[in-house]
Amino acid sequence: MPKIVDPTEKKTHIAKATWRVILEQGVKGATVRNIAKEAGLSLGALRHYFSTQDELLAYAMNLVKDRATARIEKIGISDLPPKEKVIRILLELVPVDDIKMAEMEVWFAFTFHRKYAEEQLDTQHEGFFSEMGSLIEFLDQHQLLRKDLDKEMTSEHLYALVDGLALHALLEPERLDRKRVADVLTHHINSICRIEKE
Amino acid sequence: MPKIVDPTEKKTHIAKATWRVILEQGVKGATVRNIAKEAGLSLGALRHYFSTQDELLAYAMNLVKDRATARIEKIGISDLPPKEKVIRILLELVPVDDIKMAEMEVWFAFTFHRKYAEEQLDTQHEGFFSEMGSLIEFLDQHQLLRKDLDKEMTSEHLYALVDGLALHALLEPERLDRKRVADVLTHHINSICRIEKE
Repeated sequence: MPKIVDPTEKKTHIAKATWRVILEQGVKGATVRNIAKEAGLSLGALRHYFSTQDELLAYAMNLVKDRATARIEKIGISDLPPKEKVIRILLELVPVDDIKMAEMEVWFAFTFHRKYAEEQLDTQHEGFFSEMGSLIEFLDQHQLLRKDLDKEMTSEHLYALVDGLALHALLEPERLDRKRVADVLTHHINSICRIEKE
Repeated sequence: MPKIVDPTEKKTHIAKATWRVILEQGVKGATVRNIAKEAGLSLGALRHYFSTQDELLAYAMNLVKDRATARIEKIGISDLPPKEKVIRILLELVPVDDIKMAEMEVWFAFTFHRKYAEEQLDTQHEGFFSEMGSLIEFLDQHQLLRKDLDKEMTSEHLYALVDGLALHALLEPERLDRKRVADVLTHHINSICRIEKE
């Protein structure tokens, strides 16, 4: 009886091999040949799951977003108080540990690869702008957001702050550790919230 | 009599050709051959000024920083009121027009090229963190900065906000135009300054 292979599991295995190759060599090293080698598969076996390199890269990239989304959903349904929840969710989007650092490298490498790709790849740049709007709405629904703020501008500010911290944590990790990132985000969230009664 | 060539002028000409090649093809297309062709020079003539590709890329990159610095110095010695001066300087660091957009593309492309380069290139990542500290000090010296703020954290926040806006203006220019960037920056600077008497 042939071994039953779960195709999603196999694709995830290949996607993770793709991340490792990108982390070591950048996207330019992420050839189908190198990825097959890293995944311990023949070229033919890999092509069974992904017929082109771009298809494979897009899958690996989307898996990064799916993993972040899953972590965020888990925080969303937790018992944390609303403001703490928002801060914890924002920390999921900044590379403050090894796993998120690897995800962020893949994200940036792929984003710039796509920008300069000769052919338009079958993915769009999708940041977390709308998610920032949802977090601001969430604070407002819990009567925490200051009433004098423009919600659209507040979302734009939060989005830029989070991605700026992510970029700096990636490029200057020796200065920007988890505590410093958390301090900046906590201070900012407090500054857009009403002063709480003790 | 042979034509007198100003070497700095020639190097700037080559650096600008390098930018054009990077803008069209990314850093991976910025080979010495392609750059020589774009600059209208023979390979030998180009090698007279730059003996390696990395030397040329580093020069082109530093010229981006020099140009931004020169624009900032010009604003620094202008007659603008202090707060307006700070906002105008910050706007120089975000790609809100075609020239700055091109500079920013070169900056990001080169930053990621260096991160994944096989050999350590002879340049360091140099962001504008210390400049952000200087701007915060400048506001404080003019008695504009709120007294309850931690200056170190305020600099880190401003640095992340500016680079986050720069990244988004590059990747999502249709949403983030000059006015929106200026609005977010102006609102932020107002929020860290004391309320002015009318």
